[in-house]
Order: sequence, then C-alpha cells, then structure tokens
Amino acid sequence: MLEELRQEICAANQLLESSGLVKLTFGNVSGIDRDQGVFGIKPSGVAYDDLTPEQIVLIDLDGKVVEGDLRPSSDTKTHLELYRAWPSIGGVTHTHSIHATSFAQAGHALPCLGTTHADHFYGEVPVCRPLTPEEVEQDYEAHTGLAIIEHFAQHHIDPTTMPAVLQQHHAPFTWGKNAMDSIKNSIALEVCAEMALATFQLQPNTEAIPAHILEKHHQRKHGANAYYGQAK
Amino acid sequence: MLEELRQEICAANQLLESSGLVKLTFGNVSGIDRDQGVFGIKPSGVAYDDLTPEQIVLIDLDGKVVEGDLRPSSDTKTHLELYRAWPSIGGVTHTHSIHATSFAQAGHALPCLGTTHADHFYGEVPVCRPLTPEEVEQDYEAHTGLAIIEHFAQHHIDPTTMPAVLQQHHAPFTWGKNAMDSIKNSIALEVCAEMALATFQLQPNTEAIPAHILEKHHQRKHGANAYYGQAK
Amino acid sequence: MLEELRQEICAANQLLESSGLVKLTFGNVSGIDRDQGVFGIKPSGVAYDDLTPEQIVLIDLDGKVVEGDLRPSSDTKTHLELYRAWPSIGGVTHTHSIHATSFAQAGHALPCLGTTHADHFYGEVPVCRPLTPEEVEQDYEAHTGLAIIEHFAQHHIDPTTMPAVLQQHHAPFTWGKNAMDSIKNSIALEVCAEMALATFQLQPNTEAIPAHILEKHHQRKHGANAYYGQAK
Amino acid sequence: MLEELRQEICAANQLLESSGLVKLTFGNVSGIDRDQGVFGIKPSGVAYDDLTPEQIVLIDLDGKVVEGDLRPSSDTKTHLELYRAWPSIGGVTHTHSIHATSFAQAGHALPCLGTTHADHFYGEVPVCRPLTPEEVEQDYEAHTGLAIIEHFAQHHIDPTTMPAVLQQHHAPFTWGKNAMDSIKNSIALEVCAEMALATFQLQPNTEAIPAHILEKHHQRKHGANAYYGQAK
Repeated sequence: MLEELRQEICAANQLLESSGLVKLTFGNVSGIDRDQGVFGIKPSGVAYDDLTPEQIVLIDLDGKVVEGDLRPSSDTKTHLELYRAWPSIGGVTHTHSIHATSFAQAGHALPCLGTTHADHFYGEVPVCRPLTPEEVEQDYEAHTGLAIIEHFAQHHIDPTTMPAVLQQHHAPFTWGKNAMDSIKNSIALEVCAEMALATFQLQPNTEAIPAHILEKHHQRKHGANAYYGQAK
Repeated sequence: MLEELRQEICAANQLLESSGLVKLTFGNVSGIDRDQGVFGIKPSGVAYDDLTPEQIVLIDLDGKVVEGDLRPSSDTKTHLELYRAWPSIGGVTHTHSIHATSFAQAGHALPCLGTTHADHFYGEVPVCRPLTPEEVEQDYEAHTGLAIIEHFAQHHIDPTTMPAVLQQHHAPFTWGKNAMDSIKNSIALEVCAEMALATFQLQPNTEAIPAHILEKHHQRKHGANAYYGQAK
Repeated sequence: MLEELRQEICAANQLLESSGLVKLTFGNVSGIDRDQGVFGIKPSGVAYDDLTPEQIVLIDLDGKVVEGDLRPSSDTKTHLELYRAWPSIGGVTHTHSIHATSFAQAGHALPCLGTTHADHFYGEVPVCRPLTPEEVEQDYEAHTGLAIIEHFAQHHIDPTTMPAVLQQHHAPFTWGKNAMDSIKNSIALEVCAEMALATFQLQPNTEAIPAHILEKHHQRKHGANAYYGQAK
Repeated sequence: MLEELRQEICAANQLLESSGLVKLTFGNVSGIDRDQGVFGIKPSGVAYDDLTPEQIVLIDLDGKVVEGDLRPSSDTKTHLELYRAWPSIGGVTHTHSIHATSFAQAGHALPCLGTTHADHFYGEVPVCRPLTPEEVEQDYEAHTGLAIIEHFAQHHIDPTTMPAVLQQHHAPFTWGKNAMDSIKNSIALEVCAEMALATFQLQPNTEAIPAHILEKHHQRKHGANAYYGQAK
C-alpha cells in the first residue's frame, strides 16, 4: 500500500542525517496521501541508516495505525494535528537542528534578514508558546500541534507562505507540499538561523529586509508568475 | 575472551572519530561485563582507523590487565573508579569535543535549555572541581574519577539520570548502559553544548526549561512508561 | 557547441555543493567564451548532483538563449550585465554561503584583516546598496548587476583586483578569469568572512592589515612578478 | 632520493585538506632528513589531490633545490630558516586554519585554557610581531622565519615544548619531530583555538589552567616518564 509514498518518506528521513540536520534519532519526516487520507511516518527510535520503506508506519486521520509493525514516531500526534488543520500541506518535518533550535530555546523569532530567508519564508518565522502543565499532562504531542495551529490562527499567518515554526523550549517544525518539500524547508530554516545569528553578531540592530525585496524574492519563487526552477 | 564486548567497544571508539567528536586520539570509550567483573578499553594513542577488537585491553575491577598486549588508555583509572562506584553503569566515554570542553574550560555548568537536553540529561550537567596539586601528584587519573564520584554524592545527583559531567579545566565524561549508550550521551552532550552557546548568544538570560517539560521529555524516553523507541 | 566550456561550468557548479558553499540550489556559476560572445550558466532549480554538461544553457551577450532546453538560472541577467561591463572577467559565481551572506545581511563591508584575504582581494570587499522599489519592479536581476557596476565605477574599484562584492540584504557575487577561478574566489571569500567574524569576536577593534603586507601578499600571487604557483 | 621522506611529506600535505585545516591551496608541510641536510616541501599552488611523492621538491640547508622540477612553496624560506635555527625539529607545517588564523589576525596570544592545550603546547602559544616594510621588501619569507626565531629567543621559549606560533596579520606555523608530527600540532592548535574562542564567549575572564595541571598533562605525554601512547 502506498509504495511510492513510503519510498519518498524513507528517503526524506535518511536525508535528515546525511544533510547534517540531526544527530542520533532527533527528528522525523512524514508525508500524506490526501486521496486516501493516510500519512506515513518514521518508526520511533530507528536509526536512519537502517530505515527501509517497509518500516514506514501508515496512519489515518483518526490517528489509527493502518499498516506497520513498529511503533510510530513519538511525535506522530503533532503531525496528525497539522494534517487535520491544514489541508494544503502534504509533508511535515521535525528536527532539532542546531541553530533553529537555539532560536526556539531563546524564545527568539527568526526575522527575515535577507533573500535566502525571503526565498523560503514570507516574513518572520514565529515562536509558538510553550505548553501548560495541563496540556503536557493530558496529551503532550497532540497539544504541541494544536498550539502551533492556534498561533497561526490568532496571528493570521498562512501556513502556505510560512511553512515553519519554532516551538519555545523545544525545536522547529516545518511543512511543505510533500515530505521532500518539508525537509527542504528544514534545511533552509537551519541555514537562515545560522546566518541570522552571525548577522546579529556583526550588527546587533540589523533590521528586516525591505518589504519590496521580500515580496520580489518570495514571488519569483512561489508566486503566480514564478520563474524560478523549471516549468512543470 | 569477551569477543562481543571487544567488538562493541572497538566500534564505539571508531564512532568517536567518525561522529566528529574527537580529532587525533583525544578520547576513549570502555564497556564492562558485570558478570565477569572485567571491562575493556581502548589502547593508548592508537589511531581509531587502525583499531581492531583484538587490541581492546581487558582489565578487572582491581585495575589489573587480564588480557591485551598494548598499554591501556592513560585515562583507564578514571573509568575504573566510575565502574567501581556505580554498579548501574555499563560503559564510559571520555572526549574533548569542542563545545562541551569549552563549557568545562569556562567552569560553566550546562543548563537544561530545551527538550534536546531534557531527552538525555535530567537537569543541569554539573561541573566537577579541578584536582588539587596533591591529587594530581599521587594518582591523577584515579583522583579524576574520585572527584566526579564525590561531586555526585555531595550534590545527591543520580548518575543514572545524569549520565554526564564536565571536569573543570579538562573535558567531559559521559556514561550509559553500555559502551555504545555512553558515546551516544557524548554526542547528545556536544549538541546540547553547541546549542546552549548559541542560545546564550541570542539571549544571554535564557532560563532553564520549565520543570513540567523537563519531566515529560525525560520520562517519555526513560521513565517506567516510556514510549520512545521500540518495545524491547 | 563549446563542449569544453560546458564541462568546466558543470564541474564548477557541482563544486558549489561539494565544497560546502551552498545548500539546496542556492547558487550558480557561469563562464564565458569571449571569442564567440557566448556564456554558459546553470539551469534554474536543477540539483547539482543531477547536472550534466548538456544542460548548461548557452546565452549570447544580448541575453538570448543560443542553446539549451532548460530555463537558465533566475540570476542570469546579473551575470549578463557583469560580462557586458567588464571585458576582463571570464566567470561569475553567486552563492549564499553562510558567513559572506551574513556580512551582506549586516550591510558590513569585509575588511582585509590578514594575508588570507590579501592573497585574494586587494583591500576591503565592498557592500553594494540595495535596489530601489522601481529597480526591483522593472528588472530585478539586471539591476542587481547594474548596481554592482555602478558601485565599482563610483568608488573607482578595479574588478580585476577586487573580484567580489556583497549585495546588502542579499548575498555575495564573485568573478574571475574563468568559471573555476570565480568559484575559487567564492571559497576564499567565505573563509575570509568566517575568519573576520571570529577575529571581531576576539578583538572588536581589529584594524586592517598594514598596507605593505597587503601589497606584498597580493603582488606575490597576482602581480607582474608573481612567484606563487607554477609558471604557465 | 629520500623516497620515504617524500611519501611522508606527500601524505602530510594531503592531510591538510582531508582534515579540514585548509581550503584551496592555503598551506604546506615540509620534513627534513638531518643526516643528508635536505628537506622536502610541497610545490607551490598544486592541488592536494593531485600531489604525488615525486613532485615533492628537495632543498638543502643553503636553500638550493637539490631535486624537483616544480617551483617549491612560496613559503619555503620560512621553513628553511626554522630548520637552520632549530636542529631539534624535523617537520614544519603552515596553515590558514580558521580559528588559529583568527587569533593571529586579532594579535591575540592563545592562552592555555585546558588539558587539550596542555597536552600539546606547554603554556600560551605566542604571537609574533608583523614584519617591517624593509623586511617585507628585502626577503619576506626568510624574515618571517627570522622574526619567529627572534621572538622565541627573546622570550626564552623552547621550540621543543612550544611547537607553534601565530604570526600577527598572517597565520600559524607549527613544527614537530617530523612532517606528520608537525601537522598533528596544527590540528591540535586549530581545536584549541576553536575551544578558546567558545570559552571566552561563555566566560570572558577565563583564566589559564593551574600550573600543576599544565605540568601533569604535558609531562604524562612528553616528559621523561611519559605514559601516553605505546612504548616505542
């Protein structure tokens, strides 16, 4: 079932390690088949090198395992809530990449300081509040997703143009059109976070990129008349 | 004798270099067979690439070489004291990894600033005092271990939930259930130290993670009802 | 057509990734055949691993595609303007390498703090102004090149001895005798930027290298009596 | 002639790149046969990957090329002066490694902040003064060596226990018993410099390691009763 989806998710999870985003087993990628209402996710605690497409756990949008012998990622319910709330997304990635996680730990939103950022994220990447003791107690991973969704709703942020969030005290989540696209946003987020830290070290008061440059760079890659990449 | 233990220790030592934790020969890993009361450790000054399971030196808990032609790591007595004092541990790793060592050099404990840390270390990773001239003179490496054990006893720290220490002016030691587990804690410690430095650069007054999140993350991975990883 | 040029450009683009200068598809290299008045450039959004010499897009100095089925890099017009204005250059590289881009984001020129810098760049690497809303609106990529050319003309900087620029809010461009030479300057620029940040962290008021050392290092590598490298 | 020496020097030069110490062709290693009074050094500007033992240029202590078709490293006279002044050394390495060079650029001596440093360098790694315009004009590379030798003589520093120096505005030089030993000191120097920068960022007033720990660590590895490594 869903052989192609499994393969893409397996490859995307292996990219977590080979791209340098994660050490040990600090991250996971999922991808969804919207027609079947089923998403696949990495099994918990399995080394990326050993991962095979058959081990990807398939789960429906009620959170039930549809196929798979292994326990799914402990973060599965966070992915589930994001897929439920946002029909436009097709993949989710969670990492503890060094610099993006440092911004999350500092409770510091990641401002758009240049075109590298503008190419991927339309403005400042937000920080989402930490969970309350009650939320942690009841259903930690589901509430992680719900807090993200709440933040985007309250601040009128569109998850399509802002495919990333930093959860305070925790780490980043990114998403995208599919599993591979979501991890590319994690790679871009880590690069932008590393650059932002260095930029602040050089010039603590660096201001965000002017609006017209943000607009241009985002639209040339993602707008209706985008001309970056090859026509599909 | 103890072929499987030798192989695990050899692989763990080679991981020191391939994981980027150490350069040259700045580190060593050991593992113990509690039934036989014998631990194996890297020979001193041998390049990781050239290391073979046969070269692992086997030592009993009186510190006598049981098997092996090569001189054991110069840090052997530190490992020995830790195995003697703490029956719950099965492996010990010593590195000079860049960021963890920088915290040790600065005499700066590593606070728990996020869930990456909470997943591995239950609270702040402590700094252990430097040795006195007398301790250095008499038996440097044994006293290194004894100072760590003294610190944990005096501060009522459980080595099972806090599998790491930073020795001032020196470098980190970590331990775990076995050799491979102990080096995974060294990898996690280095990541947490690198993140903590970047976090402080962004926000010098960053406070430790709230207690309920520390508790949750540690327990979901290490508690009685842990649900991270696969059931064994 | 221009088989050798295509191969060099392909190899130079692949070096962008293998040298660690860029992640994803954040950069491009071009090279020109001055006799034919044709330059080749990376197609837009193609992964470096998958790139073949046949995919290099050939373009004349009026900006028309001479050969190639794929859409050229979205930054093509910037390269075109540089080739038009400066007959002495034979290759152009654009990256978003971490530290050079951080200087560009901070709007901070890169001073010559040591001989590593002097070996490649004759003095401070300048920051070029951001584009106006009108320039962005009309023809963003052509104006990017024109703003660089304007900056060099107004400040009487010779592009032959200063083969690099940092565009504010954006990223670096470098150039050289040919495609491979231009990317070597990007590698050198990134190293110099990383060193300059660390130097400022150690000593915020570090001054530029004395003039006689700048002169010596630049001339022994690039002057009429250069004695670095092998005689050609 | 001197086949074994050539092979060691070739391997040591290739380690410059594979160890991450240098980019492009920013460094060189030499080694000497004291019986024959001949040292071998990398040819100038040759890529490390392409280097073969036959290309190593052999030079006598008068600075004359004894064997070799290629132009020797432009830094050859610096190596020559060090070999002439210090009969105890058998190899010399010059790099522009990021962090050691940053200390050189900042004119900041590298204090001994921990045992990693004490294991290799007996105290603070000194900064050597920049050359005067006259020295640069007359014979730049020879004067580079002479300034280092002058500094060690004036400050009564023993090159055997302090196998490294940082030349202001320039970069580090290290030496050792042979070519391979000299590059190991460059690797250790870079690690110590990276750690020192991070240590200062955590704790700007970090003091040097206590004398009794410096003494112990240096002697257990290099003293008459050293017990690090295998007996030879």
